Amino acid sequence: MIIVLKKDVNQADLQFLVEKLESYGFKTHIYENEGKTVIGLVGDESVLRDKPLSSFPGVEKVVPVFKPFKLVSSEFKKEESVLNIKGIKIGGRHSVVMAGPCSVENRDMLFDVASRVYASGARILRGGAFKPRTSPYAFQGLGEEGLKYLRQAADQFGMLVITELMDPRDIELVGKYADIIQIGARNMQNFRLLKEVGKSGIPCMLKRGLCATIKEFLMAAEYIASEGNYNVILCERGIRSFDSETRNLLDLSAVPVIKGMCHLPVVVDPSHGTGRRDCILPMAQAAIAAGADGLMIEVHPKPSEAMSDGDQSITPDEFDILMKRVKIIAATVEKHIEE
Amino acid sequence: MIIVLKKDVNQADLQFLVEKLESYGFKTHIYENEGKTVIGLVGDESVLRDKPLSSFPGVEKVVPVFKPFKLVSSEFKKEESVLNIKGIKIGGRHSVVMAGPCSVENRDMLFDVASRVYASGARILRGGAFKPRTSPYAFQGLGEEGLKYLRQAADQFGMLVITELMDPRDIELVGKYADIIQIGARNMQNFRLLKEVGKSGIPCMLKRGLCATIKEFLMAAEYIASEGNYNVILCERGIRSFDSETRNLLDLSAVPVIKGMCHLPVVVDPSHGTGRRDCILPMAQAAIAAGADGLMIEVHPKPSEAMSDGDQSITPDEFDILMKRVKIIAATVEKHIEE
Amino acid sequence: MIIVLKKDVNQADLQFLVEKLESYGFKTHIYENEGKTVIGLVGDESVLRDKPLSSFPGVEKVVPVFKPFKLVSSEFKKEESVLNIKGIKIGGRHSVVMAGPCSVENRDMLFDVASRVYASGARILRGGAFKPRTSPYAFQGLGEEGLKYLRQAADQFGMLVITELMDPRDIELVGKYADIIQIGARNMQNFRLLKEVGKSGIPCMLKRGLCATIKEFLMAAEYIASEGNYNVILCERGIRSFDSETRNLLDLSAVPVIKGMCHLPVVVDPSHGTGRRDCILPMAQAAIAAGADGLMIEVHPKPSEAMSDGDQSITPDEFDILMKRVKIIAATVEKHIEE
Amino acid sequence: MIIVLKKDVNQADLQFLVEKLESYGFKTHIYENEGKTVIGLVGDESVLRDKPLSSFPGVEKVVPVFKPFKLVSSEFKKEESVLNIKGIKIGGRHSVVMAGPCSVENRDMLFDVASRVYASGARILRGGAFKPRTSPYAFQGLGEEGLKYLRQAADQFGMLVITELMDPRDIELVGKYADIIQIGARNMQNFRLLKEVGKSGIPCMLKRGLCATIKEFLMAAEYIASEGNYNVILCERGIRSFDSETRNLLDLSAVPVIKGMCHLPVVVDPSHGTGRRDCILPMAQAAIAAGADGLMIEVHPKPSEAMSDGDQSITPDEFDILMKRVKIIAATVEKHIEE
Repeated sequence: MIIVLKKDVNQADLQFLVEKLESYGFKTHIYENEGKTVIGLVGDESVLRDKPLSSFPGVEKVVPVFKPFKLVSSEFKKEESVLNIKGIKIGGRHSVVMAGPCSVENRDMLFDVASRVYASGARILRGGAFKPRTSPYAFQGLGEEGLKYLRQAADQFGMLVITELMDPRDIELVGKYADIIQIGARNMQNFRLLKEVGKSGIPCMLKRGLCATIKEFLMAAEYIASEGNYNVILCERGIRSFDSETRNLLDLSAVPVIKGMCHLPVVVDPSHGTGRRDCILPMAQAAIAAGADGLMIEVHPKPSEAMSDGDQSITPDEFDILMKRVKIIAATVEKHIEE
Repeated sequence: MIIVLKKDVNQADLQFLVEKLESYGFKTHIYENEGKTVIGLVGDESVLRDKPLSSFPGVEKVVPVFKPFKLVSSEFKKEESVLNIKGIKIGGRHSVVMAGPCSVENRDMLFDVASRVYASGARILRGGAFKPRTSPYAFQGLGEEGLKYLRQAADQFGMLVITELMDPRDIELVGKYADIIQIGARNMQNFRLLKEVGKSGIPCMLKRGLCATIKEFLMAAEYIASEGNYNVILCERGIRSFDSETRNLLDLSAVPVIKGMCHLPVVVDPSHGTGRRDCILPMAQAAIAAGADGLMIEVHPKPSEAMSDGDQSITPDEFDILMKRVKIIAATVEKHIEE
Repeated sequence: MIIVLKKDVNQADLQFLVEKLESYGFKTHIYENEGKTVIGLVGDESVLRDKPLSSFPGVEKVVPVFKPFKLVSSEFKKEESVLNIKGIKIGGRHSVVMAGPCSVENRDMLFDVASRVYASGARILRGGAFKPRTSPYAFQGLGEEGLKYLRQAADQFGMLVITELMDPRDIELVGKYADIIQIGARNMQNFRLLKEVGKSGIPCMLKRGLCATIKEFLMAAEYIASEGNYNVILCERGIRSFDSETRNLLDLSAVPVIKGMCHLPVVVDPSHGTGRRDCILPMAQAAIAAGADGLMIEVHPKPSEAMSDGDQSITPDEFDILMKRVKIIAATVEKHIEE
Repeated sequence: MIIVLKKDVNQADLQFLVEKLESYGFKTHIYENEGKTVIGLVGDESVLRDKPLSSFPGVEKVVPVFKPFKLVSSEFKKEESVLNIKGIKIGGRHSVVMAGPCSVENRDMLFDVASRVYASGARILRGGAFKPRTSPYAFQGLGEEGLKYLRQAADQFGMLVITELMDPRDIELVGKYADIIQIGARNMQNFRLLKEVGKSGIPCMLKRGLCATIKEFLMAAEYIASEGNYNVILCERGIRSFDSETRNLLDLSAVPVIKGMCHLPVVVDPSHGTGRRDCILPMAQAAIAAGADGLMIEVHPKPSEAMSDGDQSITPDEFDILMKRVKIIAATVEKHIEE
């Protein structure tokens, strides 16, 4: 931590602050420049995180030297993590595509989509059984029935299942059917849920909150890792901006930025990230070109009949074209789409 | 719903769309202007909320005529709701001040703060027993012990207790001690939590999410109301902006804007809303001048010793000045601070 | 400047950096904590503003100790500036209300509005003669004819004139008629315009850009001051947010925040700041309660006939009520509305 | 235009509104659904743009049917425009790379960079002679001397020159040396500058403002086109977000979104768009994968010595790798980098 004091701070305030810092166990390192005093601290910075230093008299700003997360940081582990989830690798040179309908609507439709996206190269089947809906009056998902269909369809084609967990009380139920638990954007700071998933040890994918900074996103991943679960995939899925042309604003620079700070794999969801069918193909291409470790794509046989998110789903045929394109682009940037 | 078609839409697309709309049970009302066709719909608009109309061929945009929320809207109930929670009125001409420490740290400190804020005119005691913390390594609250202290302190001075619920599994526990359940900003779209609070019937205060639009905020309130609980207070507590001078950006125009759309009372939290001690007094004054139905203020006897949020807490003496000021301002705008 | 290096930086990178810094004339002050090296610099920080230090090998972040602006800062001048523009005081305990139509539409209407707002207590007459319009097809203002009407109306009632300058080529023309030159939000970083206004020495009001941080806002004021013109009023007029319920988001906490960093007066424009007639009264009240040194209000005798901004103008009668309210609130916060 | 009225609007307000609309020359088309009246208008919508319809009594919202821009829209011209600027094609299948230093610092450095970027495939030379700097104390550019060097270097290698115009008074001077005039992000709504460039007929590149919506961006382009200049290139260069990990947030979905609304070519500037050297390569790749018609890249022989923007410049060697990559990606998405 570095503390910058206000210009011409009075000596009593400086002394009070220094004594306080020493009482917390820090050595201080003080210098002055043109009337401004700077205090550098030697000691365990995390001790200070709860201390209201910036409201001490005379303090102008407080600058952390260390990142607020540890276990997920590149400082903790230099090389990129390559997760191996039941034989599917994610991270490093390995990119994986997850695809499927927004909601599991019924058994037939799910098997239909699964067979098509598998054929094009997807290896993880997505589908919502519990849906977080903005309106209490909207379709809320099939529940356990949906989970069963997901498991059966995935097993039939040799895929993994990823599905969302919304409530800590459902973790056993969801864990029984899913290979990867998804934590949705709205729950990125549902800390009780993060802890449960951490304790469960089940691989998970954490979606970035709609207005989460990258540091907050990595802090949420740290919650999971701090319970001993390192099988965490990060997912950029669009953040909130001032322009409503797209539902969300897909932040693709998050891919290289996170990779510079964190060893976990980063995938991109252009379906939620844009909310527009016509943006999914170009943004999927762009995500892979930016170095993403995978994609999550909503695919529906008839988007105009979808019970949710039809506006941002593509057809299996469109998905097939997308896969052909991203395989070439992946090779250009020295990655490989896992099949 | 009104559907605007792309310029010079082809007849097949138009016909397909109209048939689809009729199959959903709507009458259509079509007119054209300079090559653009507009379809007005007569029927129950909520049926269409899940339909991906904007991805139908030929559709340019879809404009709802009705608001997505009902029970909390001014259209449903014209006059402002005045809640009466164990004798304390909130809404209409009645403003209430909630005050107390960020976290309940220990019994003595809580009783000290409670006696002081009561004397200045606060009638609802706030304090966190379960704390949602960005870092897994930060102080997480005293749990049930904290709840007990809150109840005891409030009872001693004749105040109500408001405290946060983070996990649906804790609702019975928290409900045993609290008069008003707080749903924090990070949980504004934790729909399972909203439903539990709705079913419980316990009065609650819902904080606006960091990047929630006002419509999304009211949709979250609708979740609670749709379970039969109308005792909902809305709380503006700052949204995310691009400027980091303040921790959050307090959106005071939310007060008149919400009052034009919704009958529920709206209070303002300038402590979280700015994250800066030096902004709390001016923003509390401004909130009341803007017509808020109350304030929530973090008060700590020694902010520099606080275990959380010390940077945004004021002292009991500063709180006393604040109360004197806001009582006069309330009168100027034809409101009354409840005591 | 403080430079934080990456963990376990190599010695060659450290040495290269230190030599570079010394070659710029700095003394360095180095310490280490848990594998991270921090370099504090002693010397004139402004020298480094153009240096790409953060892209030097091994550098993690660069933290300025000094603010990037000088002449307008509270460090340069501690007490609040009280401008005296032809007898009207702004700043300190003096608040002033500026009012008038968005555009000068014709002579009669302007005189009508001027007489009404003067009677209610406004002392500065606003009105646009050159209008920055988003659409090239919209009404662009009356030009010099509008300026003449403004001058005549102001002179008749003993008011000052404030009007917008859009183009450096018009400065002589506008300066001939105006007492205060307004620089609009879209031109906040039109640096050539800022310099011209700085050189002219004419008092000016600088509006905050739609997405300007407070630091950038003050840097723009510094441009004017650096040419020798200290008669600068700052105007908060709403920033861009993700919610479209209001046209802009009025940032009232900017008032106390700026007052903590800068000695210039700060006024608030709730008309542009919200874009909604129903928000002008509550937000004007709130602005004064937050400590603003004045208001700018759009007043039109018949808002529904206005040639621009009718959606955010109030009538003279509504303005009269507003003035009565803000005079009381000003007194509560120890300010005085100049009349 | 479609006007949605408040629920249960009274008949007098409805009648007043309808008469007003008819007096403006519109036919009205009225229908009702569940107590809400909707008025569709037939006539020239642009007439209404200045009318404050949303503040008429009884009006809830006003929805335009037409886009506010015309000449630049896809409705006006369906096929993508392919500009031909002195033999260099931009748009459609033709992508072009613009490269060079942020500022022209001296003759030798500029020729050095020009020869290197030309060899790698850049065909347009960028460089600032007039620099818009946030600080009045920062390097402001070499002025005409810089323009001369640009012209000479470009001529030597057979490149075009693009450089920024900041002041309408400089248009003749800049037009004498430049093939393409750049309008910077801060001047996107400097309407006088837009008009001058429009009248000049010189090809130009308009950068998106830091907080401009895509509609506002296209309106600014319309300003130029409305003066008869259709040689307009649009440039996405990052918008403002709440996260400071990158200097700006590069909005790559703007590429497909704009292409759905507008026929002009769209290029991407990942240097300003991210402000980070480590993000330039991945984001340049992503931009081309998203379908951009070109790139603008800051290249400096020694970024750590650059007089401006060194933090976001890459070396000629890094640029060479970038060019090799984007040529392959362009081919994958059916585009061609012009050489």
